Amino acid sequence: MSLLVVGSVAFDAIETPFGKVERTLGGAASYFALAASHFVPVRIVAIVGDDFSDKERAVFKGRKIDLSGLEHAAGKSFFWSGRYSQNMNERTTLTTELNVFANFKPTLPDTYLGTKHVFLGNIQPDLQRSVLHQLKGKPRIVGLDTMNYWIEGSNAQLRETLKHVDILTINDDETRQLTGEHNLLRASRHVFKLGPKILIVKRGEHGALMVHPKFTFSVPAFPLEEVHDPTGAGDTFAGGFMGYLTKAGNMNEQNLRRAMVYGSVLASFTVEKFGVKRLAKVTSREINDRARRFAKLTAFKL
Amino acid sequence: MSLLVVGSVAFDAIETPFGKVERTLGGAASYFALAASHFVPVRIVAIVGDDFSDKERAVFKGRKIDLSGLEHAAGKSFFWSGRYSQNMNERTTLTTELNVFANFKPTLPDTYLGTKHVFLGNIQPDLQRSVLHQLKGKPRIVGLDTMNYWIEGSNAQLRETLKHVDILTINDDETRQLTGEHNLLRASRHVFKLGPKILIVKRGEHGALMVHPKFTFSVPAFPLEEVHDPTGAGDTFAGGFMGYLTKAGNMNEQNLRRAMVYGSVLASFTVEKFGVKRLAKVTSREINDRARRFAKLTAFKL
Repeated sequence: MSLLVVGSVAFDAIETPFGKVERTLGGAASYFALAASHFVPVRIVAIVGDDFSDKERAVFKGRKIDLSGLEHAAGKSFFWSGRYSQNMNERTTLTTELNVFANFKPTLPDTYLGTKHVFLGNIQPDLQRSVLHQLKGKPRIVGLDTMNYWIEGSNAQLRETLKHVDILTINDDETRQLTGEHNLLRASRHVFKLGPKILIVKRGEHGALMVHPKFTFSVPAFPLEEVHDPTGAGDTFAGGFMGYLTKAGNMNEQNLRRAMVYGSVLASFTVEKFGVKRLAKVTSREINDRARRFAKLTAFKL
Repeated sequence: MSLLVVGSVAFDAIETPFGKVERTLGGAASYFALAASHFVPVRIVAIVGDDFSDKERAVFKGRKIDLSGLEHAAGKSFFWSGRYSQNMNERTTLTTELNVFANFKPTLPDTYLGTKHVFLGNIQPDLQRSVLHQLKGKPRIVGLDTMNYWIEGSNAQLRETLKHVDILTINDDETRQLTGEHNLLRASRHVFKLGPKILIVKRGEHGALMVHPKFTFSVPAFPLEEVHDPTGAGDTFAGGFMGYLTKAGNMNEQNLRRAMVYGSVLASFTVEKFGVKRLAKVTSREINDRARRFAKLTAFKL
């Protein structure tokens, strides 16, 4: 019961009011894979350059993540740099260098072809679909993330890909942009017509909302005293969510609810330190402890 | 077991993407009292002008709210007008006419003097404190709301008043402004030093967070398909919260959690229609139904 993720593995330079890092392992697929690896074996499909060294490799290997789908190309890895405002509620992108990522054509090694659980990270929608086409047999659960750039620039391609997706995980603005509907409940009905059976709206420091045709579930972000770097929180959430769901084996209501909680739990670790530093070291015991504290955070009896 | 509220009773003109009303009953004390009246008898201390007619009086009487502390003065009632942006996440105040409210000196009728549960709505902090001084005996629970205007302009007076307060209910920005601390958990520790034992941060469409020295509790806003007018949601929340807590009789953890839920439940009705229109008509059955749906919205088992 492995989980395949396609997306970016990158280097980031990040500046927040709590400090600055010049070059740290980043990329959506990295955060996703590290989070999901606490629940199931994870397989990465991504591309990196010559600058991806044993040091970065060790971070994934430390979590037993399968890198046989990680393509190495001549040149530099995807590089992103950004700066957060004083209150961390705004982020300015300073640099985006696609580098080897510009020519990324996801290719699944033979050992990945039977994967039944797939997460299509935020890349061009035709490339996301090409991953599904390479698989042998129909996957059991397909999740997808996207962004304003593809919603605007590759809308038809995205709609084609969404036909094959079970769970869409995007943020408020993306939901509104994709559906042309401000109200998130009404937006979910648009989304259901496009293919996905479930919409998860990621709301940053306000948590996440799941809309399923039969129920709605809201989970807060875990309140923390120290938030040092929000980078990757949404990707970590998706990884924790999909990882738990893959392990659970089916999308029944209780599993979906628990998966939301574990997504939020994992994301709460990511933001405590820069990059993947905290996420790469978190233990199962810490995850379970925080999940229990999460239950206390939201529990009441009428 | 009555609950006393001091604050504004006003007329509002409101424009949202869903429509426009030229003159409707408003004011923090109105929303608060209507919400709280579902749990306990409510006593209002406020001031209105000649324009306050039997029509408005009937709205309060319909909920058996005690108006013997409602002063009538020559002139016009407090008038506010505002316009919401297309997405309703921004509000522009167009007019604020204090009118008779400018000379408001809260005076408690004899029948109010033994009240043990008090909510000091958002007025000048010395006036809030004057209400406490008029009471015979120490109240059991005191809640307080305030705003940026008093935090900035009457800071010393506000701090004096906060010494006598158990529960502070303010929004994110006000919390940050009052404490000089962006992180809400750390901000709560500042607040505890000022007097209150409990901080409730109201977060609009994102719900509310309660920070108690021994626990933290998060409640979402109820997701609705139709939000027509957010005016008064925060005051309604405070009314539902204080009303439930007064009825419950003590501030134990389970009561505090439930009170948060009922606050959020009541607020979810207010925003469905303009002004107090929906809130004034909501039934106990509807409140209890929605509270049960609230439980489903947040429930999970690990």
